[in-house]
Amino acid sequence: MERLRDLDEPALLARIFPVYAGATPRPWGSVPVGPGDDAAVVGAPSGAVVATTDGMVRGRDWRDDWSSGHDVGVKVAVQNLADIGAMGAEPTALLVSLVADPDTAAAWVLDLARGIASVAEEAGAPVVGGDLSSGPPGVLVVSVTALGDLRGRRPVLRSGARPGDVVAVCGSLGRSGGGLALHLADGPAPRASDPERQQAAAGLLAAHRAPRAPWRAGPVAADAGATALIDVSDGLVTDLGRVARASAVAVDLDGAVLRERFAAGPLTQCLGADEALHQVLAGGEEHSLVGCFPAGTDLPALPGAPWTVIGVVHEPGPAGARVTVDGDLPDARGWDHFATP
Amino acid sequence: MERLRDLDEPALLARIFPVYAGATPRPWGSVPVGPGDDAAVVGAPSGAVVATTDGMVRGRDWRDDWSSGHDVGVKVAVQNLADIGAMGAEPTALLVSLVADPDTAAAWVLDLARGIASVAEEAGAPVVGGDLSSGPPGVLVVSVTALGDLRGRRPVLRSGARPGDVVAVCGSLGRSGGGLALHLADGPAPRASDPERQQAAAGLLAAHRAPRAPWRAGPVAADAGATALIDVSDGLVTDLGRVARASAVAVDLDGAVLRERFAAGPLTQCLGADEALHQVLAGGEEHSLVGCFPAGTDLPALPGAPWTVIGVVHEPGPAGARVTVDGDLPDARGWDHFATP
Repeated sequence: MERLRDLDEPALLARIFPVYAGATPRPWGSVPVGPGDDAAVVGAPSGAVVATTDGMVRGRDWRDDWSSGHDVGVKVAVQNLADIGAMGAEPTALLVSLVADPDTAAAWVLDLARGIASVAEEAGAPVVGGDLSSGPPGVLVVSVTALGDLRGRRPVLRSGARPGDVVAVCGSLGRSGGGLALHLADGPAPRASDPERQQAAAGLLAAHRAPRAPWRAGPVAADAGATALIDVSDGLVTDLGRVARASAVAVDLDGAVLRERFAAGPLTQCLGADEALHQVLAGGEEHSLVGCFPAGTDLPALPGAPWTVIGVVHEPGPAGARVTVDGDLPDARGWDHFATP
Repeated sequence: MERLRDLDEPALLARIFPVYAGATPRPWGSVPVGPGDDAAVVGAPSGAVVATTDGMVRGRDWRDDWSSGHDVGVKVAVQNLADIGAMGAEPTALLVSLVADPDTAAAWVLDLARGIASVAEEAGAPVVGGDLSSGPPGVLVVSVTALGDLRGRRPVLRSGARPGDVVAVCGSLGRSGGGLALHLADGPAPRASDPERQQAAAGLLAAHRAPRAPWRAGPVAADAGATALIDVSDGLVTDLGRVARASAVAVDLDGAVLRERFAAGPLTQCLGADEALHQVLAGGEEHSLVGCFPAGTDLPALPGAPWTVIGVVHEPGPAGARVTVDGDLPDARGWDHFATP
């Protein structure tokens, strides 16, 4: 097996660069200077750039027995694009930083690049730069920075939700978290004998390994008048809690809608109704978009990416800015990187 | 000792954010949306953004017995700003990604942030976003993305050098590499008894741990007509070799100038003349700027950051695009992350 230590840096880059070459900017975007110089130059037609960074660490954010390099590449790119979409912006470019044990298989690194490239091509956001470093034995860290443009829109912040708004979601809920639960319970392959359940499980597992998120719905929501937007990275209740605190409002979610529209089907089939609802409320890494809209807004519907109303925004009561389900506090603590459980 | 695992993420961020709060954009820059939302929004007045990313890995790029968190923060920020400067651009913002063993001392992470913040303040490039992840035992990875603006300038590429140009450097050469050699030979403290040599050594050691680079000279060089610019990250000969290949030219350096203006003094005092010249030619992580200018250009001189002519650009001979010193190939192989020595 060819390892990174068998290649010098120029040889490795000579293989990686062509993988990224397929992505081209959108018609309104541009990359005056791409990879290979001291820095890239990326068009920012609005006169401002939207920027975010998010990374993945082997053993924490993925396991090699579950996820391929391609899966990791898709996931780390999608995470970042969801953050761009959640500002109401459209992606323009990616930068990729890799820290890898020199014993890492070169094929894994190329597979990672192909996963990132597949999302970059879909998004019209070329990989314009990056950084390669060797790391300690066993270590693999992939960090992506995504850049975007608002195309003249005002950014949609977490702080804009107003009492009376409706809360809506675009994309799935709980599927990535459900897939993680299955992975933890079953190992890499779903062991169900029922073919329908097996297919359902396979979908959840795939959603965990390589989520696909409706980042394109962000700018459309902004145009429709969204007052606040966030992507579900740490769990619906946790992330909406951020919106509630930033906006000084309370959010009440509709348990029946969450059960019928999100927990039912594959999630309930694989996990049972209670755990399915828990994943809908608390499951992270879904990267769907949650938005607040003035009541009566005609919610936009991109093909395949409809918005579903799941709750309402209230004046905060004496308990402050919090998220409830049918008026009650749910048990749905989200992910924290460093806290001891 | 308080460790990251003793804090939850919001508690840690609540300590880090104020450290970064002191940096404000330059008068022509802006940060419409700073840290804390899904993504930041940073002014790009030229309608394009310059972007680069560069990271450091504990045990590869620094050793804790040599470098403090502050040193690492300064170094990783300076590396990135040098890449922005080497495009002829001015920095506007930084994003910081940290992967850390949960047993890492919280004080180290705050010291790192202070180091980054000190450079961000000096540069007028606030930290506008980032990412925190837990990593395997012993692992610390810091990645920075720097954004910049050309303020209407054309980017200065590696590919623009022309036969007849002069080659000039702004900043020191070999000091960081010399400091590394001293660190490797002596351990953390210079053991010289001669106070003058001790002071010289301390300067080199500091240059390795926390280099200061003249990134501001980049845009000034661009305005003066620089045809090519690069920062010295992997060694003068290695980095000028990149310019030579990208521009399809040959570069010949003046050994006497390199000896007298860069190798003499502290470097020769601490390492001897031969090793001093080797560090000038091959020492990495200096982050000084090297530029090519049409012959006769009035080289710009920022206070404290003069340009010194060190060579000339030629048509490539039969041996192709290469870098020579007084006509001969130097022994000055630069740094490669993955290759086995």
